[in-house]
Amino acid sequence: MYKAPVEEIAFTLKHVAGMGEALSKGLLGDLGEDLVDAILAEAGRFATEEVAPLAEIGDRQGARLADGEVRLPDGWRDLYRNWIAGGWNGLTAPEAFGGQALPHMLNVAALEMWNSGSMAFALAPTLTMGAIEAVSAHGSAALKDKYLEKMVSGEWTGTMNLTEPHAGSDLGVLKARAERRSDGSYRLFGQKIFITWGEHDAAENIIHLVLARLPDAPAGTRGISLFLVPKFLVNDDGSLGARNDLFCHSLEHKLGIHGSPTCTMIYGDGKFGDEKGAVGWLIGEENKGLACMFTMMNNARLAVGMQGVAICEAATQKAVAYARERTQGRAPGWSGAGMSPIVEHPDVARMLLTMKALTQGARAISYACAHAIDMSHRAGEGHRHWQERAALLTPIAKSFSTEAGVDVASLGIQVHGGMGFIEETGAARYLRDARIAPIYEGTNGIQAIDLVTRKLPLSGGDQVKGFIAELREIADSVRCSNLDGFGDTAARLDAGIADLEQATDWLLKTLADEKAAEALSGATPYQRLFGLVLTGCYLAKGGLAESGDGGSDGRIALCRFAAENLLAETAALRDRVVNGAASLAAARILLA
Amino acid sequence: MYKAPVEEIAFTLKHVAGMGEALSKGLLGDLGEDLVDAILAEAGRFATEEVAPLAEIGDRQGARLADGEVRLPDGWRDLYRNWIAGGWNGLTAPEAFGGQALPHMLNVAALEMWNSGSMAFALAPTLTMGAIEAVSAHGSAALKDKYLEKMVSGEWTGTMNLTEPHAGSDLGVLKARAERRSDGSYRLFGQKIFITWGEHDAAENIIHLVLARLPDAPAGTRGISLFLVPKFLVNDDGSLGARNDLFCHSLEHKLGIHGSPTCTMIYGDGKFGDEKGAVGWLIGEENKGLACMFTMMNNARLAVGMQGVAICEAATQKAVAYARERTQGRAPGWSGAGMSPIVEHPDVARMLLTMKALTQGARAISYACAHAIDMSHRAGEGHRHWQERAALLTPIAKSFSTEAGVDVASLGIQVHGGMGFIEETGAARYLRDARIAPIYEGTNGIQAIDLVTRKLPLSGGDQVKGFIAELREIADSVRCSNLDGFGDTAARLDAGIADLEQATDWLLKTLADEKAAEALSGATPYQRLFGLVLTGCYLAKGGLAESGDGGSDGRIALCRFAAENLLAETAALRDRVVNGAASLAAARILLA
Repeated sequence: MYKAPVEEIAFTLKHVAGMGEALSKGLLGDLGEDLVDAILAEAGRFATEEVAPLAEIGDRQGARLADGEVRLPDGWRDLYRNWIAGGWNGLTAPEAFGGQALPHMLNVAALEMWNSGSMAFALAPTLTMGAIEAVSAHGSAALKDKYLEKMVSGEWTGTMNLTEPHAGSDLGVLKARAERRSDGSYRLFGQKIFITWGEHDAAENIIHLVLARLPDAPAGTRGISLFLVPKFLVNDDGSLGARNDLFCHSLEHKLGIHGSPTCTMIYGDGKFGDEKGAVGWLIGEENKGLACMFTMMNNARLAVGMQGVAICEAATQKAVAYARERTQGRAPGWSGAGMSPIVEHPDVARMLLTMKALTQGARAISYACAHAIDMSHRAGEGHRHWQERAALLTPIAKSFSTEAGVDVASLGIQVHGGMGFIEETGAARYLRDARIAPIYEGTNGIQAIDLVTRKLPLSGGDQVKGFIAELREIADSVRCSNLDGFGDTAARLDAGIADLEQATDWLLKTLADEKAAEALSGATPYQRLFGLVLTGCYLAKGGLAESGDGGSDGRIALCRFAAENLLAETAALRDRVVNGAASLAAARILLA
Repeated sequence: MYKAPVEEIAFTLKHVAGMGEALSKGLLGDLGEDLVDAILAEAGRFATEEVAPLAEIGDRQGARLADGEVRLPDGWRDLYRNWIAGGWNGLTAPEAFGGQALPHMLNVAALEMWNSGSMAFALAPTLTMGAIEAVSAHGSAALKDKYLEKMVSGEWTGTMNLTEPHAGSDLGVLKARAERRSDGSYRLFGQKIFITWGEHDAAENIIHLVLARLPDAPAGTRGISLFLVPKFLVNDDGSLGARNDLFCHSLEHKLGIHGSPTCTMIYGDGKFGDEKGAVGWLIGEENKGLACMFTMMNNARLAVGMQGVAICEAATQKAVAYARERTQGRAPGWSGAGMSPIVEHPDVARMLLTMKALTQGARAISYACAHAIDMSHRAGEGHRHWQERAALLTPIAKSFSTEAGVDVASLGIQVHGGMGFIEETGAARYLRDARIAPIYEGTNGIQAIDLVTRKLPLSGGDQVKGFIAELREIADSVRCSNLDGFGDTAARLDAGIADLEQATDWLLKTLADEKAAEALSGATPYQRLFGLVLTGCYLAKGGLAESGDGGSDGRIALCRFAAENLLAETAALRDRVVNGAASLAAARILLA
């Protein structure tokens, strides 16, 4: 059973991702280390003791639709009530509406633990947080006053309605429509698919944020508006009024995250209310809906990255525990009586250490991204730098962590042998749950396009180059540390960073030459390359911090394993970026 | 929907895997190209038209246990009857018992197609073929006469009962026991788990091959005997007698292959018959049961490899079809109206081409392994060489193909975007089914141990060195072809082969120095390295053959894509083998 790794998380936040420095410089307001530790401990307890025990039943029963109502798995309504009671929903939300306005770093750390407990359950608050953020940033004062407090408390949940059957990665072609009404409200019509927690029985009301098109809107992405559409209309005194004209038509039958209801939502079908059309209110300006979505995209994408980290951690814990218990064969050098625990077999140890290194790497990248987001919220001279850093790290955090989630979960099954294929073991669920994360909130391919075409050119390439220079400093510190335990780490980091730099330069030049197809051919390998180099560097940073502390909980050894076993891949990835496009283009005849 | 790629399969058999040469030299008996083509066409038709349409219902319903009886999914009993009627069960079985004694190359090609249709269904004949092989090779004349004909026809199916809860990879500790009876029969007692098609309603009788221990047997693997234990006892006239004392206690709830009943079998519990104990007969000699199993291991492992190839092919077909249909966004260079098909996006094209290259590579390796098995069955001077070649190729075919199955199925989901996560789409099933193949019939980690410790040392290392020399000839042929389409292929193959050679030499030396732990630390990366180099070389062989034919169906382009995009990984793999052990050993403190 999952146990939240609170100390590991605190270490990574403070010593790798930048929270320690931010705290000591007073950049995080009144927040002190004691409060950080207390919040992490309590979030960990909630994840371990309350969420995780209900994950399996959630997977087995799934969310069920009957007569338009969605029933959550047994125990989940109470779990959600405990969630609200714990005040977890508003960790980063504005204080004016009952939130705690804490740094995102704390929130992503807590999100990781809740997702490790049950990714399907944690999706509910994840979506609500996104909705709170959009309303906070772009909603009118009236909308904020009416909706935010109950969303922040969690009494009402939120959703994001973007996708339509023909409009997934490309939202420009969406067809849901909105009509203006004379009282300033709108009426919405259309179908939305893949709506996470679109309908359920754990909250009094559900606040849908819906992208739709006005009758006179321009075509494409510049003609999309964002609307707030509540399941129940809300009276001026805050009490709930009539049911709005929207409903959940069906639930998807999915590979994983069974406890999370994935809904097809129908708006304006005339099922409820006197007049056809779901009543909604504009968020932000007309036709600027996508811009509103973009402001929250870093956080939402990072939140999905946390799902990857969360699965990595939970799957690794499970596999390590099994490999220590299960005995089979005699490993080389095993001197015990009878069979050795399988953890003693080099091949099993290799799988487990790979899982640990990927978990730690993904975690560090994601926390560093949250740190950049937190820093970017401060005004002053560093504002733009941190905004760019957050923008640069977001696609890497999302893609690297979610890919790691799939790979680590799959390795976890392998470690379990035949038992891994049996559902009751629980290892398979991690793979089933993990598999959606590289897809939603922008597929990892879309992340790679974003990274290469929008993020690399930030500040004319200076942002990425500055980042690479910082990575070099880490490699130098490893070299200067003269610690034997690092083995060949410094040289391996140098090589990886050089690969990253060459690939970066090539991409910047190729983009400048307007050879988009060539640059995009290498986007995914480049994204992976970046994540792998960051993994090596952040593990090294952790190792250096540990050595400073005089500790020896194996960080340096794990860093060395990653440097000497995983980082060798960077040369192949660089090669794919720099040399791969021509053969890819030539081989397209096979796909015609 | 899957359509058997009969022409591609025939091409690979004849021009890459060695069947063409074997046919022209008359090494395959009376078999001619016309018969090969006819069998492939008809096997393909059966897979496409009869098996594939029943795959989804098999997955959805699964096999169900009620009152000790296992009901197959709707339509599967008829499907199995059609299977028997088609005569497919005895393709390679001895003619004396109604088989066709055809080469294994043909059988694995057919197996690939049936597994693409439904891996869960194809498991039934796969297990029966293994049982036929064991009885043919080691059974007494009386056993053969009594059982083989009906097993060859498929009227009776066969199973393999090896695993017990505490005995998986390590069979030496199994506890099932057998007692001698004065009439020469035995009585068996014990529990076996993970028994594929252990009970079902499609055949009149089920012939279980069971590993068990005699009371006076030595401990460990040298005290295991193999028994034939039928579900129904068989009278001397061949009619069915009493029910034997064995039953299916429960079915596993698995990640995939739902239509295949995975049974816990109980022997000798007294549920049936007058006297406790399941009646069985010895196969081979007492205490030599494992040796009997080993003779069929190459075929069984290769058969699992075919499952990997099969999933690769089916998942790739599905993803390519979707990517051609689905439109989204505008790819760079797209000049059509509106959105482009997603196949036009470089990132999607990269995924699809990677899937195609891995599919073709895994197929070629597996067919080459079958070719070696076929050649090894001929007496004469080449016998030992081909026996060794088959032994060397088997772990690579099993592991590379099954890993490719998982990776390709996962990429297939990614290509489908959100739809890939929806079960009705069918892409997710391929991943769920594929995930068992790297585990059973010897985990891929066990394959790697086998490859490094037993196969590399064959003929003092000359077998593997001779093979590497053959690969160099392929690289040379590419260079000498002077075909522009190959791009940098020759140099890439040279580099990959050099990596393979260095890693091989290092492993042979490290084994000679009796540093088992160090050698085994790199076993899995080495196995992958070997498979990747073979993929490049066999794709090149196909390209060269195509150029000789004057054809241009893209083989050279696919080879170039693999050489310039996938083979760069060989350096990292070689590095892991040669340099990875020390850091792996040092990092073990993290697992203590």
